[in-house]
Amino acid sequence: MTVEFISVGTEILLGNIVNTNAAYLSEKCAGLGLSCYHQSVVGDNEKRLEDALHLALSRSDIVILGGGLGPTKDDLTKEVTAKVFGKELYEDARTRARIEDYFARVHNRNITANNWKQAMVPEGAVVVDNDNGTAPGLILEENDKTAILLPGPPNELKPMFESKIAPYLNGLQPEGIYSKMVKICSMGESRVETVITDLLETQTNPTLAPYAKTGEVHLRVTARAKSEEEADALMKPMMDELFHRFGDKIYTTEEDVTLEDAVVELLKGKKMTVTTAESCTAGLLAGRIMNVAGASEVYEEGYITYANRAKSKLLGVKEETLEAYGAVSEQTAREMAEGAAKAAGADAALAVTGIAGPGGGTKEKPVGLVYIGCYVKGHTEVKEFHFTGNRAKNRDYAVVRALTFLREELVKERS
Amino acid sequence: MTVEFISVGTEILLGNIVNTNAAYLSEKCAGLGLSCYHQSVVGDNEKRLEDALHLALSRSDIVILGGGLGPTKDDLTKEVTAKVFGKELYEDARTRARIEDYFARVHNRNITANNWKQAMVPEGAVVVDNDNGTAPGLILEENDKTAILLPGPPNELKPMFESKIAPYLNGLQPEGIYSKMVKICSMGESRVETVITDLLETQTNPTLAPYAKTGEVHLRVTARAKSEEEADALMKPMMDELFHRFGDKIYTTEEDVTLEDAVVELLKGKKMTVTTAESCTAGLLAGRIMNVAGASEVYEEGYITYANRAKSKLLGVKEETLEAYGAVSEQTAREMAEGAAKAAGADAALAVTGIAGPGGGTKEKPVGLVYIGCYVKGHTEVKEFHFTGNRAKNRDYAVVRALTFLREELVKERS
Repeated sequence: MTVEFISVGTEILLGNIVNTNAAYLSEKCAGLGLSCYHQSVVGDNEKRLEDALHLALSRSDIVILGGGLGPTKDDLTKEVTAKVFGKELYEDARTRARIEDYFARVHNRNITANNWKQAMVPEGAVVVDNDNGTAPGLILEENDKTAILLPGPPNELKPMFESKIAPYLNGLQPEGIYSKMVKICSMGESRVETVITDLLETQTNPTLAPYAKTGEVHLRVTARAKSEEEADALMKPMMDELFHRFGDKIYTTEEDVTLEDAVVELLKGKKMTVTTAESCTAGLLAGRIMNVAGASEVYEEGYITYANRAKSKLLGVKEETLEAYGAVSEQTAREMAEGAAKAAGADAALAVTGIAGPGGGTKEKPVGLVYIGCYVKGHTEVKEFHFTGNRAKNRDYAVVRALTFLREELVKERS
Repeated sequence: MTVEFISVGTEILLGNIVNTNAAYLSEKCAGLGLSCYHQSVVGDNEKRLEDALHLALSRSDIVILGGGLGPTKDDLTKEVTAKVFGKELYEDARTRARIEDYFARVHNRNITANNWKQAMVPEGAVVVDNDNGTAPGLILEENDKTAILLPGPPNELKPMFESKIAPYLNGLQPEGIYSKMVKICSMGESRVETVITDLLETQTNPTLAPYAKTGEVHLRVTARAKSEEEADALMKPMMDELFHRFGDKIYTTEEDVTLEDAVVELLKGKKMTVTTAESCTAGLLAGRIMNVAGASEVYEEGYITYANRAKSKLLGVKEETLEAYGAVSEQTAREMAEGAAKAAGADAALAVTGIAGPGGGTKEKPVGLVYIGCYVKGHTEVKEFHFTGNRAKNRDYAVVRALTFLREELVKERS
């Protein structure tokens, strides 16, 4: 089956917001085994939206429209879709009650008259409750074509898709689609693709698709099957093979577990604490670890030591070391990690020192040179990296490499 | 004149990458006074790309295609566009020489045969040199329609657009388009729009367009004129009016100056240093300040104090304060800011303590409650915020509010 997306909103055409919904829906629909050949964006304009919807319905089985379900008169997606499907709108009592309840619960303020527009739905449409906003999702079916209308805000669209639209799309297909995500760190994209070339070339059911992320590669394994058990059985040889080839480099097989989640989980399991000492990343590494709700169990304090003086004062890096080897050196990274662990009384520590750019590089120490020190229970390792991006990219990569490094050391320690 | 974009790449349809090029081109073209009513994405497929290009040329004056200019046989944008325009391809000697030079300079490795495909260009096309990669940009004109082909990687597309395509598009129009960006902090989007409602309703030349960013609002003022001097004269009354209405809330009128740039610049001007003490943001604030290359002049060290013990140990927050008022309180934020300034020997300090969520909230102190303390030369102010997003959003907003707060205090101190 084929699917295509129409994003509705003048704010996208003006470049006011980045269309992250399209990327999200693309990845999810690929995971559901649907083929997507087209995506488009139109503004809040009746004629152009109508043309776009006619065109999409002429070439795809399922059309997902995101946005334009708001309460103002600019919001036209529902009205135009109803017109294209030849349906009248009526007020849905359950949606009206849900909107009333939502306002009472979340906004604690009065509902303006235009909000009732959101309770109007096309005849025959399936109404999908919105747990995070007022506009309901809508599904219309006619002549083997399906239109799915979703609210535009990502924090409404994504949970609605996940919990209600994905199961519906699965039900449309003769077999269900089941997938697992194998997330790999410690290995670059081209290397990962080389390792699985034969699997990519011979894939049928399950299929295998690589997704490159900053410093990580995600592999989606997707099976078509009549039941989850059958899917698991189909996926098992592929999963076993991936674990055989990548082993400990796989940090999770859960869709919503991040690298920092995995690291914090490992630390919790070992009842260990961690601290950070950052120069060029200046807090980004700590900030990322603390993305994890409940990371307070493993992290108490950390240090941003941009100046040499701070490296000595807070972490006890020896002045001789800084003089002899410089702030960006294997030796300084080592003393930063060890000093941070000692100062914080932590079991583990990560230290980052490097030249993020654009200035500050020399022939011997060019922009992109970063040393990361990793201390775990009395033992310190230091790695040297050469990043080739701009300031922001170099700092992002340093953060991912640091997390990966700590994970490797913790995994080693486990075995 | 109207413009539309076609992004070419199966990796976008699979959700492998987010289409940031489209958002970039949208904002830039709006700034050039071009109207954009459509955007679309197609995969690396000859028939579908041809159909998409025909459709786009039928309804827009200018079609910008991004991606599909690579060296592999999957890359078809140039071939399909040449076919649609009825042109043959020939090898462009200058481009061949440039590719040779690029490989020698950047890759330091041999060129594979397929790279020469990138030196082939359509007859009659304007060839636009690529300073950051091998694929040249191409401009084809015929029957009042223009196709502009750009390489897909954002780090090639953006500089090429900025330096070469934008001036070309400006030249297509009877008058030039000139714009200034007025960036506002300390005031929310709906408030800003209320203040400028009359200007938005009566705009002609120059025009005025608001862009909401996290915790900021950017206003683009755009004039059509025969020269920069004429444009400046046209924009002056509008700019004066905006400064009259927003005053110190405007932190820059430069396109590429960020809020953190403005704060660091203010500190440099006053020869002041700053430090940070972060609980819930845990390094994100310091990390953002250090986005600014050269921020080392104003920032030496900072503290991540997640645990209460760390707040006392590193910042000297009194245990009685923590016990009586709690870690998330006006009093703790104040002592954190003052303690951080003292510990770092800095002239200014920002402290952030709050409940980012999803857990940790109570009826008295709900998720989203954040206190920010701002110390400047012996004087401390504390503000209370109530954010309503998820963990990530709450932390992002806390960072912007903290920067805004420090800027306000520095501006006050100036006058």
